Amino acid sequence: MAHEIDGIKFEQRHGKARVRVGRVWKSENGRHSFTEWNVSISLLSDCLPAYFQGDNSNIVATDTMKNTVYAKAKECSEQLSMEDFAIGLGKHFTSFYKQVATAIIKIVEKPWERIYIDGQPHKHGFKLGSEKHTAEVIVKKSGDLMVTSGIEGLALLKTTKSGFEGFIRDEYTVLPETRERMLATEVTGFWRYSYESLPGLPAKPLYFSDRYLDVKKVLVDTFFGPPKEGVYSPSVQRTLYEMAEAVLGRFPDISSIQLKMPNIHFLPVNLSNKDNVIIKFDDDVFLPTDEPHGTIEASLSRMRSKI
Amino acid sequence: MAHEIDGIKFEQRHGKARVRVGRVWKSENGRHSFTEWNVSISLLSDCLPAYFQGDNSNIVATDTMKNTVYAKAKECSEQLSMEDFAIGLGKHFTSFYKQVATAIIKIVEKPWERIYIDGQPHKHGFKLGSEKHTAEVIVKKSGDLMVTSGIEGLALLKTTKSGFEGFIRDEYTVLPETRERMLATEVTGFWRYSYESLPGLPAKPLYFSDRYLDVKKVLVDTFFGPPKEGVYSPSVQRTLYEMAEAVLGRFPDISSIQLKMPNIHFLPVNLSNKDNVIIKFDDDVFLPTDEPHGTIEASLSRMRSKI
Amino acid sequence: MAHEIDGIKFEQRHGKARVRVGRVWKSENGRHSFTEWNVSISLLSDCLPAYFQGDNSNIVATDTMKNTVYAKAKECSEQLSMEDFAIGLGKHFTSFYKQVATAIIKIVEKPWERIYIDGQPHKHGFKLGSEKHTAEVIVKKSGDLMVTSGIEGLALLKTTKSGFEGFIRDEYTVLPETRERMLATEVTGFWRYSYESLPGLPAKPLYFSDRYLDVKKVLVDTFFGPPKEGVYSPSVQRTLYEMAEAVLGRFPDISSIQLKMPNIHFLPVNLSNKDNVIIKFDDDVFLPTDEPHGTIEASLSRMRSKI
Amino acid sequence: MAHEIDGIKFEQRHGKARVRVGRVWKSENGRHSFTEWNVSISLLSDCLPAYFQGDNSNIVATDTMKNTVYAKAKECSEQLSMEDFAIGLGKHFTSFYKQVATAIIKIVEKPWERIYIDGQPHKHGFKLGSEKHTAEVIVKKSGDLMVTSGIEGLALLKTTKSGFEGFIRDEYTVLPETRERMLATEVTGFWRYSYESLPGLPAKPLYFSDRYLDVKKVLVDTFFGPPKEGVYSPSVQRTLYEMAEAVLGRFPDISSIQLKMPNIHFLPVNLSNKDNVIIKFDDDVFLPTDEPHGTIEASLSRMRSKI
Repeated sequence: MAHEIDGIKFEQRHGKARVRVGRVWKSENGRHSFTEWNVSISLLSDCLPAYFQGDNSNIVATDTMKNTVYAKAKECSEQLSMEDFAIGLGKHFTSFYKQVATAIIKIVEKPWERIYIDGQPHKHGFKLGSEKHTAEVIVKKSGDLMVTSGIEGLALLKTTKSGFEGFIRDEYTVLPETRERMLATEVTGFWRYSYESLPGLPAKPLYFSDRYLDVKKVLVDTFFGPPKEGVYSPSVQRTLYEMAEAVLGRFPDISSIQLKMPNIHFLPVNLSNKDNVIIKFDDDVFLPTDEPHGTIEASLSRMRSKI
Repeated sequence: MAHEIDGIKFEQRHGKARVRVGRVWKSENGRHSFTEWNVSISLLSDCLPAYFQGDNSNIVATDTMKNTVYAKAKECSEQLSMEDFAIGLGKHFTSFYKQVATAIIKIVEKPWERIYIDGQPHKHGFKLGSEKHTAEVIVKKSGDLMVTSGIEGLALLKTTKSGFEGFIRDEYTVLPETRERMLATEVTGFWRYSYESLPGLPAKPLYFSDRYLDVKKVLVDTFFGPPKEGVYSPSVQRTLYEMAEAVLGRFPDISSIQLKMPNIHFLPVNLSNKDNVIIKFDDDVFLPTDEPHGTIEASLSRMRSKI
Repeated sequence: MAHEIDGIKFEQRHGKARVRVGRVWKSENGRHSFTEWNVSISLLSDCLPAYFQGDNSNIVATDTMKNTVYAKAKECSEQLSMEDFAIGLGKHFTSFYKQVATAIIKIVEKPWERIYIDGQPHKHGFKLGSEKHTAEVIVKKSGDLMVTSGIEGLALLKTTKSGFEGFIRDEYTVLPETRERMLATEVTGFWRYSYESLPGLPAKPLYFSDRYLDVKKVLVDTFFGPPKEGVYSPSVQRTLYEMAEAVLGRFPDISSIQLKMPNIHFLPVNLSNKDNVIIKFDDDVFLPTDEPHGTIEASLSRMRSKI
Repeated sequence: MAHEIDGIKFEQRHGKARVRVGRVWKSENGRHSFTEWNVSISLLSDCLPAYFQGDNSNIVATDTMKNTVYAKAKECSEQLSMEDFAIGLGKHFTSFYKQVATAIIKIVEKPWERIYIDGQPHKHGFKLGSEKHTAEVIVKKSGDLMVTSGIEGLALLKTTKSGFEGFIRDEYTVLPETRERMLATEVTGFWRYSYESLPGLPAKPLYFSDRYLDVKKVLVDTFFGPPKEGVYSPSVQRTLYEMAEAVLGRFPDISSIQLKMPNIHFLPVNLSNKDNVIIKFDDDVFLPTDEPHGTIEASLSRMRSKI
């Protein structure tokens, strides 16, 4: 939504963030499903007089956007994926308001997981887990859309089968080479689906929820390797690439994936004073750190064969 | 360590907080165990000249305390509970330094959990979980001690079998009575063991680690009730009491327990404007909130029969 | 509120935390005053049947407590200190409800500060500052009370006039002695007033607000010393003691003070590899750290001359 | 740095984040200057074999990048702006390593402010303030660059002279119109300078530091209006636009500005039960909230007259 006035290019958007909604669905046998979503809405709309003259007549109030989230959650009589909920919101905003050209809907799901008591799933009990499913959906008035799912806070660590050798050594280099180190990261990932318009979307209500679990499994399995042997990681770069490649290779409905994998350092502890060696590191005692950390990120995208 | 000078009572302590240490243990079959602890040390020691005259000659430097954590972690050639590690540190500080009368060691464990790949435990792979095991150990020079374990961040939610009725109604009361509501909390708990001196401690290296899992299971099971029927909660107060009572009833080696259970409100969503009802709540759509929240806390302690 | 049943000592409290309230007062000349308080209420009350039998008839609902905060804020037609507001709430809860023996009210003020435009105070404009004023008031049904004010988040740093020498050296000691280092801390302080019952309280509505500014000034001035020369700190311990002593010495209405001053380390940067020295520290380049940090805390209390 | 292999487009970057550095400069008269920077480095470099074959020979280790920050800070014998420090780092990485095409340097400054004692500036004492100065510099091997400064955490509030009227009303609209409300926001802003290559940069070492203060003043002054009268805000949109326009109008060396101004709601408190009205709002008692909040953002950019 770029506009030009008096030699100035102007772009704007407005919306509502951190709209939290919980939704319970109850099946006939007494089994409850529950989800908690944190929704952000951003609208690209034709409302320039609000900025230029303080005329709000084309403004969708952000309070109204918030109410709409609740109204639409109420209308969802059957459980559905957060991606589908976001798409529904985007369709609403772009079709209900003539001013709205594009709606950008982001959702982060709170990781409530069904609790198990002595191995049995509880009908209405939930416990908070760790990593989070995210989604970002962009819907245009034309019906074109972009669906991106993601994961955040997936903290992984392996105590061996990791090294880092052969990198550039110069006058600022202190880091020793190693074939044996701790490797830890907190994966943030985004993957974009190949669906590009409303008509072509999968009809299954939990399609995207299932796919999220599929992708998470591929990421985790590739990071760690087989339970007994593991897999050697020569660098975070290489491991990240293998993870991204495995996702693209496995799921044809995913057109691109971006991964960010900070290298969260566990420093070997060696400690001496002038009289004696207090600790000599032997792959046993580490100093875990949050900062600084390496930042490795990459994206893989299928090329479009649009001639 | 209270002292009186010139009509002023003086108390002090000093130590080191947020000492992070990771420890790997490797078994012969290639299975690695890993733990990450965040250790805080506080010493009650005889070092008043530091405060009164700037004379540091009786001060244990906090940097030295930090080094000691690493040195002692190095010495732990076999995996042990964080309570036992804390006790070992406390013994060291109170016996190694003549100035130190009491050592208070707190540890929070980062919830790294062994990863499972296709149902198989991975030999060296770990993933971050959610709730955390904590410990506080107080060791005196005499060998007397106090061992308190705890849990924090245990977020639980049930979508039914909760109500709140019959409370005081007055001119400030707006809350309706109900027999059907969402119940959510984040349990913080502390339980103190009955062991009171070094000689009487259990010899098993993972005794306290196992007990933590036991207590957590009792807390969770009592909160939710059986997987099919659940259990009705007439108030957070009542549920908290049942949970604490169950722990004391089950574990004779626990002499007291304190629970804090904020009532994290999920507000029913009803929405109207002057023209129409937008949403009528039917136990389906909720507004999750972080603030304000109820604060319910209580402690149960066995009376000592010391005549 | 300890009770004994069946050999178990039972203690409990309940309340509402994170009740946020903003209050505007408008003077005739168009000058607005504004304050934002985050209030926590905890009641010690006679409501055991709620815990033992699920009978809520003596429970003050935490929602009612929250409403009361707003009702009482409304009643404050003149600006007043947060300590006085807390005392008013405590008086209400202990007198209005026969079940309530003691009310504990904590408030943290959000540090909104009047904005200055070209040196002129703005009549209705405010900007967020940094350190926070806190208060904790305990009111009993008898009218006895305890008023404690505090400060949190007061981060101070000086680039010289600090050292640490002559401490214990042993086999775990690595830290060198120094007479020249960076000193940084984040002061948390609490001071208790000598007023012990409702009748004796100062009548001035902003008495405690002014005293907070007085105490903060004494803490800061003592930490830094004169603007040109500063003052040498031989240890955090000594500096903390001087700060606490200065407050007690200056304000006879303060009966005790507790200070917590973490030693937030700025590590000298020295860097070498086997070929050359990359950086040789010369009191110039530091590595600021958050963890680990030293923890120094002490309290000074006037002795009571109760014969 | 996009590459195509086997129908997959590949993009990558790597670097080091949260490199914290403190730097003291001492003048002859005993006056110290101090700054603490949190530096993030990201390099676009030619190192694909690391991803494809685990060959690290073209990788600049992130540990080396960290060391370089300290080495370069050491070299800065005179105080300089964080923008200039970032530019210096960017020049180094792109010229020292043949593999590095582009360096992206981000810095957030910790807001240490010189302390004043009785109105006198302290020679070596500092206190932490609130809002933060940020910078992002992109340097290419060619010497082309982009310098963007910013501000974050600038929380502003005014208690009157704000309204919101005339917006779209539909079946989801509940918000009443008003000409009198609280207005609060936390400004995040970025402004890009017109300098586009190394040779054209201003020579003054604190040029960008001064400009940051200038821009902050214009933003604040425009938000609040004159100290006595203030200025009416018909919407966050309008106020944001005026602030951005004022910056562009005042500083010809700034080519574009982006502002994000969440509408942080202070809700009017009205409270009733079926028997009585507990509180009737009269622009006096508010419920401050963090979530949800409106999100208003816009950018203004001068059009380039490049024919």
